[in-house]
Amino acid sequence: MTLETVSTNKAFGGVQGVYRHASSATGTDMTFSVFVPPQALAGAKVPVVWYLSGLTCTHANVTEKGDFRRACAELGLIFVAPDTSPRGEGVPDDPAGAYDFGLGAGFYVDATEDPFAANYRMYSYVTEELPALIAANFPADMGAQAITGHSMGGHGALTIALKNPDTYRSVSAFAPIVSPLRCPWGEKALTGYIGGDRTGWRRYDATALIEDGARVPDILVDQGGADNFLEGQLKPALLAEACEAAGIPLTLRMQDGYDHSYYFISTFMEDHLRWHAARLA
Amino acid sequence: MTLETVSTNKAFGGVQGVYRHASSATGTDMTFSVFVPPQALAGAKVPVVWYLSGLTCTHANVTEKGDFRRACAELGLIFVAPDTSPRGEGVPDDPAGAYDFGLGAGFYVDATEDPFAANYRMYSYVTEELPALIAANFPADMGAQAITGHSMGGHGALTIALKNPDTYRSVSAFAPIVSPLRCPWGEKALTGYIGGDRTGWRRYDATALIEDGARVPDILVDQGGADNFLEGQLKPALLAEACEAAGIPLTLRMQDGYDHSYYFISTFMEDHLRWHAARLA
Repeated sequence: MTLETVSTNKAFGGVQGVYRHASSATGTDMTFSVFVPPQALAGAKVPVVWYLSGLTCTHANVTEKGDFRRACAELGLIFVAPDTSPRGEGVPDDPAGAYDFGLGAGFYVDATEDPFAANYRMYSYVTEELPALIAANFPADMGAQAITGHSMGGHGALTIALKNPDTYRSVSAFAPIVSPLRCPWGEKALTGYIGGDRTGWRRYDATALIEDGARVPDILVDQGGADNFLEGQLKPALLAEACEAAGIPLTLRMQDGYDHSYYFISTFMEDHLRWHAARLA
Repeated sequence: MTLETVSTNKAFGGVQGVYRHASSATGTDMTFSVFVPPQALAGAKVPVVWYLSGLTCTHANVTEKGDFRRACAELGLIFVAPDTSPRGEGVPDDPAGAYDFGLGAGFYVDATEDPFAANYRMYSYVTEELPALIAANFPADMGAQAITGHSMGGHGALTIALKNPDTYRSVSAFAPIVSPLRCPWGEKALTGYIGGDRTGWRRYDATALIEDGARVPDILVDQGGADNFLEGQLKPALLAEACEAAGIPLTLRMQDGYDHSYYFISTFMEDHLRWHAARLA
């Protein structure tokens, strides 16, 4: 697995890098960013926080706008931001070019439906291929991993943590899609990637996974009260119900006046990193 | 002076806004951003930090990548980021479309040469028109203003502070052009905007202003050691020499390994805001 360095910039005493590699999971080149904090430059292996981005994003959005580096440098955390889908010539997109399916909208699933099954394997990419690449190329303590994400990436973080409780020691999300089974974004994506049989969708739905027995120690969710997608797509009450029924401690913070943007995410990023650092220590 | 709100987003308890207005100084519409911290939303007037951006930038670069909001929210500072030039149809640009003159490269001067004199009046815009607009529309304590900037904007901050010591109570800069008289960027810009007579340039050169008697209480400058423009354009030693000769306390911090990007700026933004807050208190 050869890693190409796209760029590195010193920041907050660490190194913010952008890297590219040929992915066997997706059959495409994939680009991602990694911040390595100063503690790791000094030789130590440090915990890893995964950040999964939302619809339309690449690694670049959080890398430029996420305000995570100061806290990661203080807390000694590697911060990894993958892309949200395969990209490149020959990768099928939404037939109508919509923003909520296809390019930029991989939903962190392994697609089974043609023509998407060949490339849209973001679940395997994020949970297997990219972690192996990180372990081989960065000073990462892979025994201490946490995962978070925004919107579609919050869905990714919740489902991946619930399905891999031995891998991720903590999980949080910013304005996550909590139940793709019960929102238009999720219904469109899972129909397209997984097919019309909804029983197959349950392994990609945080609330269904919890109903079906998946457990994590606790969950932190921040949700903006002025988020345009709150009622139609995100529906955090569904996660609260599932966690309540399952006895999973959920810290759900409704943040009055905040929208769905990186202005919201960056405001609460430090809180999430401290949440994870406390559980990774 | 009518102000159009382009966008507002809640962030760090305050409001990050982008605004547009018809500028009499430049004869064009101008866009700028303002962060109002939570202290001011509660009714208090708070100090103002001006941030002048570098070549090619608009208000958006620092607004998205500057990592200034957390510290401004803590310290109670309004943060204003103007554009770097007039823009729009009919505004003359560099004849060859170069990045270092014309659009995105106003150099914070009032041009006297045709065809630039009509619109390129960024000195008047930043020191007179925009402050009046801020005073009229935001909870700003205009008796407590500070100014900083990056590269070309660092040049702007230094020269504006030196020429208006009663207006700006503190000044700092990130990787500033310290002497346009003695670097290719400055020579090209001042020739184009002010004309070939170098005596007229001295009022737009921080080192010349100091030599000619201008004074500020002290100056903070951060400069990346791995900045590609350090030796050819920025030359902080010239500022150090001028300050030394004039008895102006200069804190010039060479930051090993840092480049000219917002990864550098964001790393040291908090230090600069604390520097200003201490002098605005």
